[in-house]
Amino acid sequence: MKQTLKTLKWGEDMIYLDNAATSFPKPEEVYLAVENTMRNQGANPGRSGHKRAIEAGRIIFEARESIAKLIEVEDPLKIAITLNATEALNVAIKGFLKKGDHVVTTSMDHNSVLRPIKTLETLGVSNTIVQCNKDGELNPKNVEKAIRPNTKLIAVTHASNVTGTIMPISDVGDIAQRLGVCFLVDAAQTAGVYDVSVKENKIDLLAMTGHKGLLGPQGTGVLYIAEGFEVAQLKEGGTGSKSENLLQPNFMPDKYESGTPNTPGIAGLSKGVEYILKKGIESIRAHEENLVEHFIYELKKIDAIRIYGVNNFKKRAAVVSINIGNEDSAEISYVLDKEYNIATRAGLHCAPLAHKTIGTFEQGTVRFSFGIFNTHVEIERVIAAIKEIVKQI
Amino acid sequence: MKQTLKTLKWGEDMIYLDNAATSFPKPEEVYLAVENTMRNQGANPGRSGHKRAIEAGRIIFEARESIAKLIEVEDPLKIAITLNATEALNVAIKGFLKKGDHVVTTSMDHNSVLRPIKTLETLGVSNTIVQCNKDGELNPKNVEKAIRPNTKLIAVTHASNVTGTIMPISDVGDIAQRLGVCFLVDAAQTAGVYDVSVKENKIDLLAMTGHKGLLGPQGTGVLYIAEGFEVAQLKEGGTGSKSENLLQPNFMPDKYESGTPNTPGIAGLSKGVEYILKKGIESIRAHEENLVEHFIYELKKIDAIRIYGVNNFKKRAAVVSINIGNEDSAEISYVLDKEYNIATRAGLHCAPLAHKTIGTFEQGTVRFSFGIFNTHVEIERVIAAIKEIVKQI
Repeated sequence: MKQTLKTLKWGEDMIYLDNAATSFPKPEEVYLAVENTMRNQGANPGRSGHKRAIEAGRIIFEARESIAKLIEVEDPLKIAITLNATEALNVAIKGFLKKGDHVVTTSMDHNSVLRPIKTLETLGVSNTIVQCNKDGELNPKNVEKAIRPNTKLIAVTHASNVTGTIMPISDVGDIAQRLGVCFLVDAAQTAGVYDVSVKENKIDLLAMTGHKGLLGPQGTGVLYIAEGFEVAQLKEGGTGSKSENLLQPNFMPDKYESGTPNTPGIAGLSKGVEYILKKGIESIRAHEENLVEHFIYELKKIDAIRIYGVNNFKKRAAVVSINIGNEDSAEISYVLDKEYNIATRAGLHCAPLAHKTIGTFEQGTVRFSFGIFNTHVEIERVIAAIKEIVKQI
Repeated sequence: MKQTLKTLKWGEDMIYLDNAATSFPKPEEVYLAVENTMRNQGANPGRSGHKRAIEAGRIIFEARESIAKLIEVEDPLKIAITLNATEALNVAIKGFLKKGDHVVTTSMDHNSVLRPIKTLETLGVSNTIVQCNKDGELNPKNVEKAIRPNTKLIAVTHASNVTGTIMPISDVGDIAQRLGVCFLVDAAQTAGVYDVSVKENKIDLLAMTGHKGLLGPQGTGVLYIAEGFEVAQLKEGGTGSKSENLLQPNFMPDKYESGTPNTPGIAGLSKGVEYILKKGIESIRAHEENLVEHFIYELKKIDAIRIYGVNNFKKRAAVVSINIGNEDSAEISYVLDKEYNIATRAGLHCAPLAHKTIGTFEQGTVRFSFGIFNTHVEIERVIAAIKEIVKQI
């Protein structure tokens, strides 16, 4: 069994371009932290007073510290850890909005934002979904126009998971601050690569996933809540704090962290974020931008390829959606996997309105998403594969 | 770093008796499954069509199959996987009950049941908390007496996490069925060791944790929902299914599994449950009962020790709460850890009413909780330590 403990390449030479679904591989430290926590640590943080339980608590606190540093938050206890970004978004949206409120979001947002907002409609929370242009770009003025007297929340993705289009969150943050509306950012596709400073961008609520750009394991997400925003929890239960009380503690982060946390996963997340802090998001971003520039440069030489999203690779996260003629996106993705050992994701990517926005609701797109460990050699191989596929059609 | 990959004993010879908080260690297969999934598999299940994403989906389906087998459920898709038992309980309680409904629970239940029920009070859902006796025993007749015309749910823990007292869930199941009330069991302390067949016990909703008796990693829980029970989800988001629809899918298990799941953790859970199925819960239970019998037999010889819960070790899960005279439980637990390297948990164990029931709300208790890997030699050492502590007081 020993060989299972080193990171094998998938198949002989699998090229993994599905980093927008989950980043792979992770830095070695991430794997080791998960393994070490499970094998040598094992206890339940904040539940018992023995050495190992205290150690588990320390691991989780260190994760909060690193994350707080990354997003420029002073108090690590403002960082709640969740199952995933979806949970963080649900808490933010459903915990903050009340009957009679109005929320503004965009047509490029993910189902993890849109579905909670749609559910709230049935509870008397209205919404406006601001239309983005066909490249997925958001005009902040349209956000401002959508604001009503009862608008309590603006919820915007930092970058589309379909086209990579980066949203002007700093401008939207200005509008939100000026109009006194709470500002929620979904940084699932950007955290760890792009600046998600809550100070710079005037973010009040921030949701992130742990297993994409933050390089942590699956089963981890983050919710930041700024001081002064009342957000109800979705779940109550044992928190290891105020055990004598039948009411949920009303302080961060315990309020949002009922039950036993995913300590091994959080230990891994902590190491992922440390890795990023050491490397610097600028250098990670530069690498990914170069990959995207290279990929798009080569794609443009191929007839029959349609590339979605903005042309400027500085304005897109490392996500490139394409189609080949009118071919079914799922079929292309299947061939890339089966014949060329290239992992991509086809279809609607849990973002149906984004596909309506860019005109691909029927066809879907083939999505290539890059990560810190992808290389230019891989891009060359992918381009060669695409050229062969195009020829065969 | 290689030494971190084998399971070290804590300190030189730490004795881990905090299995009711989280079981430790896990079977080797569990660690390997988590590691292998992270290092070699890595993809996001149900999100993409490539080999590894399909493989991730298969891993999760296998976990559902094993769990379904363990609790005697025919359709594995009735098994939803959650962050922890607390999440499963919150979905069951808050997703099922509506304004005007009434719910019955017990004074031995955990804050993960009591706190959601208390929160629902503010939304017009009333409750009756049936008082258990001073050993933590529940009289099923008292449950029946508490039923009102608007009682929609009976929520009962399978065994107290404070005293180990096993609840007569089969009798309560009969009552629930006869009176047409939905029956929710919290099997956080029993699954993997005691029979939680939903058929035998007429359970409609079952919540379990993955990281205690099921021997999986932290960050995993299970919710079973029987056919015909309408339970709203707490969270909406991407499910990898019906992506074109802005409404949450209304089928199991996707309805309750929004966002990226904890695939490595679930892979580990799957192996934990397989381990149990192979070993047989009867043999695991026999081992734990023997340990408890041994421990209590020796404890009874020591004056000044007060043991809580029922005297019959067949009627208690492998959890033994004690106090030494009027000494602070936290102080005793601290000394056990610091001087003797024995991990226990003191205090209220997130179950304040249970401590009121057994008369230890002020003092708390020192809880020793045993697992499949504890030994009689360890019990001898713990008894020797307790004797020394008693002498010094």
